[in-house]
Amino acid sequence: NSKLKIFSLNSNHKLAEDIAESIGTKLGKCSVTRFSDGEIQINIEESIRGCDVFVVQSTSSPVNENLMELLIMVDALKRASAKTINIVMPYYGYARQDRKARAREPITAKLIANLLETAGATRVITLDLHAPQIQGFFDILIDHLRGVPIIAEYFMQKNFNPDELVIVSPDHGGVTRTRKLAEYLKAPIAIIDKRRPKPNVSEVMNIVGNVEGKTCILIDDIIDTAGTITLAANALMKVGAKEVYASCTHPVLSGPAMERINDSAIKELVVTNSIALSEEKQGGKIVELSVAGLLGEAIVRVYEQQSVSMLFD
Amino acid sequence: NSKLKIFSLNSNHKLAEDIAESIGTKLGKCSVTRFSDGEIQINIEESIRGCDVFVVQSTSSPVNENLMELLIMVDALKRASAKTINIVMPYYGYARQDRKARAREPITAKLIANLLETAGATRVITLDLHAPQIQGFFDILIDHLRGVPIIAEYFMQKNFNPDELVIVSPDHGGVTRTRKLAEYLKAPIAIIDKRRPKPNVSEVMNIVGNVEGKTCILIDDIIDTAGTITLAANALMKVGAKEVYASCTHPVLSGPAMERINDSAIKELVVTNSIALSEEKQGGKIVELSVAGLLGEAIVRVYEQQSVSMLFD
Ligand SMILES: Nc1ncnc2c1ncn2[C@@H]1O[C@H](COP(=O)(O)O)[C@@H](O)[C@H]1O
Ligand SMILES: Nc1ncnc2c1ncn2[C@@H]1O[C@H](COP(=O)(O)O)[C@@H](O)[C@H]1O
Repeated sequence: NSKLKIFSLNSNHKLAEDIAESIGTKLGKCSVTRFSDGEIQINIEESIRGCDVFVVQSTSSPVNENLMELLIMVDALKRASAKTINIVMPYYGYARQDRKARAREPITAKLIANLLETAGATRVITLDLHAPQIQGFFDILIDHLRGVPIIAEYFMQKNFNPDELVIVSPDHGGVTRTRKLAEYLKAPIAIIDKRRPKPNVSEVMNIVGNVEGKTCILIDDIIDTAGTITLAANALMKVGAKEVYASCTHPVLSGPAMERINDSAIKELVVTNSIALSEEKQGGKIVELSVAGLLGEAIVRVYEQQSVSMLFD
Repeated sequence: NSKLKIFSLNSNHKLAEDIAESIGTKLGKCSVTRFSDGEIQINIEESIRGCDVFVVQSTSSPVNENLMELLIMVDALKRASAKTINIVMPYYGYARQDRKARAREPITAKLIANLLETAGATRVITLDLHAPQIQGFFDILIDHLRGVPIIAEYFMQKNFNPDELVIVSPDHGGVTRTRKLAEYLKAPIAIIDKRRPKPNVSEVMNIVGNVEGKTCILIDDIIDTAGTITLAANALMKVGAKEVYASCTHPVLSGPAMERINDSAIKELVVTNSIALSEEKQGGKIVELSVAGLLGEAIVRVYEQQSVSMLFD
């Protein structure tokens, strides 16, 4: 077998270290800095000739910097004769522009896929894509892992009474994910059905399912400005929920997110470390779960040419 | 003939407006902003179906932001049925990593070429590439214009006595450019031959050519941290030059550049607007020349399917 090497760029250094540790290895040596004018300078400080290389990088904020680091690293690895170049991208940014909803829009999720392939990536390992269809944007191999089991495990430890628990989808798009979490926790689901009765009248949060007196767990893939999730939490409390937890795989948490969460009825926000939390976001209501073990297992399975499909849900 | 449309992204808005004005048209309407999480959001606000589209963007600092704006714009234009997508890139960033000088280095100049093609560009119009070989990194059409005539025109107006003038190359790589400027000004050339007599001994600036009592004009393609050019200017004064002007096409001017220039013997620094100067860089010793007319002429010639080769030197 050729050698396995894992490198970290700048988006998730701690996670990359944890992944390496989880499989009993250390990160490869490289430095990723900037020239004086802001151009990225990468130095790979050990030979990778003939190796199976895994590069850990999320395209989270600063998304354009993180993406360019990744593309330049892949170019350098390709020219240094890596055998395979596997991108471990816990969070796949630019995924929400995944279709032309209006005239003359770009489809950034496809553009990113093309750029990664052009740079020379041979495989992508990612987690909870905003739309699973993005898998089809790639002509190279892509492994699409799921965060729900990790989130489920956390809530199972709370030993909620299943009769007093309901898993809630903040919109119709997230029902599959919600049902999955509900299966793990043996609880029913509810769905928040936002609708605008007339144009220019504010939205009504209609709740489909029984939440009265119950512990609610909201689940989404991404929480960005946290508008949807905090409105949902408050609406659930208003119709008599006992308490509301919220959870997501990818804590983007931009703009007013932290303030909204702190001011909301949400009791705990459970997220993964697919996106590194800046210091001021850590603690408080936020509980961070690690995907290091999951990604480590995927890396070993890919490296040993075993199936990773058991990690798909 | 199909319609010509020119769009500007965020790197050089003023230049783009001047280009449009120079050929009697207006910029196309589009907005290029950021979502809350920093992802780029582009709205093209007029139909470009079947048009010959020209997008003005330099990959100057912030280089990764400017590059991603360009790639996403090209993707959107492609999906909106543009007939041709022509990138007008006055400054081509990432050009200095154009070969593997050390093991495991990327070749970013080639990566950028590949990314532009992948996004859907059909032609690139650029100015003074750091190495002319970068033209060969493209499989699409590329027009490589030169800034020397514009710089020459400025210095010709000063009516220097050719016998008291010498054009100086700050290193061996720039001799062709230096000779070109010397031809316009009918002056001889000199070359600064940096050498390190022994390892760990500081460099000696050896000047090949006669500069004593003369007005010197240093010329380079890029001035970045301004170390080379200011050392050269000071060395020229030390061996008896009368005065030293410096010039370049691309004023990157990062890090300590402004301080070095202000503290140096350089009398005037003559640059083009291929890279927009931030406000604090304007004025003082810096004279800014416009490439709007040159780029406008190139755009019209490309659009009318005429040769642009007369703009190549
Ligand atoms: N980074 C972003 N931040 C906020 N909204 C976005 C972002 N990227 C795309 N969108 C918008 O989000 C919508 C798609 O989200 P969704 O309906 O959840 O798939 C589209 O209207 C996009 O224009
Ligand atoms: N953005 C940059 N800033 C400073 N140096 C760079 C940059 N990009 C590449 N280089 C280095 O500049 C050298 C090439 O410059 P040159 O010899 O002028 O072609 C190489 O050693 C590169 O590593």
